[in-house]
Amino acid sequence: MSLKLKNARRIEGLDSNMWVEFTKLAADPSVVNLGQGLPDISPPIHVKEELSKVAAIDGMNQYTRGFGHPSLVTALSCLYEKFYPNKINPNKEILVTVGAYGSLFSAIQGLIDEGDEVIIIMPFFDCYEPMVRMVGATPVFIPLRSKPVDGKKWSSSDWTLDPQELASKFSSKTKAIIVNTPHNPMGKVYTKEELQVIADLCIKYDTLCISDEVYEWLVYTGNKHFKIATFPGMWERTITIGSAGKTFSVTGWKLGWSIGPSYLIKHLQTVQQNTIYTCATPLQEALAQAFWIDIKRMDDPECYFNSLPKELEVKRDRMVRLLESVGLRPIVPDGGYFIIADVSLLDADLSEMNNNEPYDYKFVKWMTKNKKLSAIPVSAFCNSEAKLQFEKFVRFCFIKKDSTLDAAEEIFKAWKNQKS
Amino acid sequence: MSLKLKNARRIEGLDSNMWVEFTKLAADPSVVNLGQGLPDISPPIHVKEELSKVAAIDGMNQYTRGFGHPSLVTALSCLYEKFYPNKINPNKEILVTVGAYGSLFSAIQGLIDEGDEVIIIMPFFDCYEPMVRMVGATPVFIPLRSKPVDGKKWSSSDWTLDPQELASKFSSKTKAIIVNTPHNPMGKVYTKEELQVIADLCIKYDTLCISDEVYEWLVYTGNKHFKIATFPGMWERTITIGSAGKTFSVTGWKLGWSIGPSYLIKHLQTVQQNTIYTCATPLQEALAQAFWIDIKRMDDPECYFNSLPKELEVKRDRMVRLLESVGLRPIVPDGGYFIIADVSLLDADLSEMNNNEPYDYKFVKWMTKNKKLSAIPVSAFCNSEAKLQFEKFVRFCFIKKDSTLDAAEEIFKAWKNQKS
Repeated sequence: MSLKLKNARRIEGLDSNMWVEFTKLAADPSVVNLGQGLPDISPPIHVKEELSKVAAIDGMNQYTRGFGHPSLVTALSCLYEKFYPNKINPNKEILVTVGAYGSLFSAIQGLIDEGDEVIIIMPFFDCYEPMVRMVGATPVFIPLRSKPVDGKKWSSSDWTLDPQELASKFSSKTKAIIVNTPHNPMGKVYTKEELQVIADLCIKYDTLCISDEVYEWLVYTGNKHFKIATFPGMWERTITIGSAGKTFSVTGWKLGWSIGPSYLIKHLQTVQQNTIYTCATPLQEALAQAFWIDIKRMDDPECYFNSLPKELEVKRDRMVRLLESVGLRPIVPDGGYFIIADVSLLDADLSEMNNNEPYDYKFVKWMTKNKKLSAIPVSAFCNSEAKLQFEKFVRFCFIKKDSTLDAAEEIFKAWKNQKS
Repeated sequence: MSLKLKNARRIEGLDSNMWVEFTKLAADPSVVNLGQGLPDISPPIHVKEELSKVAAIDGMNQYTRGFGHPSLVTALSCLYEKFYPNKINPNKEILVTVGAYGSLFSAIQGLIDEGDEVIIIMPFFDCYEPMVRMVGATPVFIPLRSKPVDGKKWSSSDWTLDPQELASKFSSKTKAIIVNTPHNPMGKVYTKEELQVIADLCIKYDTLCISDEVYEWLVYTGNKHFKIATFPGMWERTITIGSAGKTFSVTGWKLGWSIGPSYLIKHLQTVQQNTIYTCATPLQEALAQAFWIDIKRMDDPECYFNSLPKELEVKRDRMVRLLESVGLRPIVPDGGYFIIADVSLLDADLSEMNNNEPYDYKFVKWMTKNKKLSAIPVSAFCNSEAKLQFEKFVRFCFIKKDSTLDAAEEIFKAWKNQKS
């Protein structure tokens, strides 16, 4: 083929994508899908109703302001001002994007140069690495490591960064660190002390912080979500990312936002205006209306920011019992809607599988085919060298209605009976 | 400020954006807005109704396939196969994007390398230039030039490329040419012969063609839209771009698509999966349903692909008369929903305006402020060297309801009376 019909160098080697591969496998309707973070519970009625209403309004089907629909950025600034010591300027300090994905992309494209280093904590939401590579920067990886837990329950809080190891990753070349709390796929909710260690290093090395907080509302009893941007000296250097899909269980709306100081956000705006220009108006207006409803009842249990984590905590506990009942030792998540377990204990016979793949890739493919249950391999959230370290782990999504969890339970029980 | 808080080099100098500036000016509700290509006619009822219906379906509010919602890519392949000699594979030869903007972006990022040259025809839809610069490629400009028309009506078809001049722009460094037909802002619909000249050069120099055809349905009596991808030897090297916003008068839906051979589309898919991953599901499903309704009645006058250009042709003719009545000589467009006129004949007193700006920028700002009528300066569609060549022209949008055009007419009439 003609050389001119080849890909541009910047995307060389970035073509494989775990989601494309595993969501295709799970598309078989006979498969119980605990893979992609795709709620099959109903989104809140008021959110769906707002979209139905907005669709009928002529003007709401036309272009809106490129950096964020006026009513949406107003709602976002009103909401988040409750959590920041500073005011948030809706037009200069917020950018509405195509999902949190779009926020990550515009932050990395707008702020990271070829040759820069970006610290990424493993395991990590898989797009961080190719996005950093696409700008010609170098990802510098550091793993979360588990403390020994002996006979106790294993918790996501047992997985921590080693402060010395973290400090060793920072240098004058470090342009940014990407933090993700609550963490996907571990479910870890960083403590104030843990975030302070990161903040101190960011300030010492004059480094940006990209804080992916899409699961910010999904924090379970005994834990608290902290925003690193509210730590002294951190607002100045932090882009905080949120998601409508995770906030309101409407992942298909693909709306997210970045919040930060205007002198950083303006560079993300420049990327946006040369990428997609603006996000969909009807979804932004419906989202703004949905936010106003929940902003007005934030102290009530019915507020979705409060009711969803309550609903999910029950599902989390059920998943813990379920995985334990088949002899697995899950890592109990403090936040988010995923749970991880070491599946090597299940002794699946993977001899028929492609040997060039990590254990968990083979396991998930085997389980999807033979047990009609899908999940996501955790080594997909690691760089190529560290895959071995996490390849015994598989991630299950539990933002699922009871009938889906029932079906998963049936599968696990039959599996256990078959073994014993 | 810390150097680390600076923008990345790739977006240096790409921060100014004409739309941000001029839509802000036109946001004053007392201004009659003939600026941005923003329909104020009602979108078709069936399109709005489909979105209202889809919003109520739980699953349609969740993630869908990243490269295009299955029902939408099926509808698109079924529609476009009517116009291509070849079949179109919905999964491998179509990518659904965030507007045509997203298609342009993913094509340029996926296929154009640093140091490549990309031919851009002036005037051009303004994002072509920064998108090419953002990848470190060099835009090579060539203007459309008008034939002398003496006393005759001036038509967009009088504006043509000089074949020798065009040939001189191609070299071994040329990676792509961006073609836009029907053309924004000129309204030019390229003839078969004109496109053949471009196709011959693309083949001779083994060059990609990015064909922006978002106004494909909006072609007026006596003209016909041709797809350069259907010319012999061109499918292999062409990305053809379409838009839901322009097709169904719902610019706020921000859905577009790229069509081309799988070995090119796969690189655009790689960009998409590292940029935004997927487009909004409810909008994609509603769009698919809307397409099926109109695909089934394509030979009927009620089909929106047929009824909209009929409706707009009346508005175009009205705008021609209106502009002529105040002594202007509009360039009558053969397609699209914009009309250009040399406004220097209006003898506006621009002495109060910022002298560092091109004439048309000053004129539009002056007109918006003093006449409460907004438009878009045509020099915004030119590179910095060619601004002088087009700075006497202003673009008016006519996809507006009659009451809006009435209001514009009032303004022009009062203006004329004031002068005489």
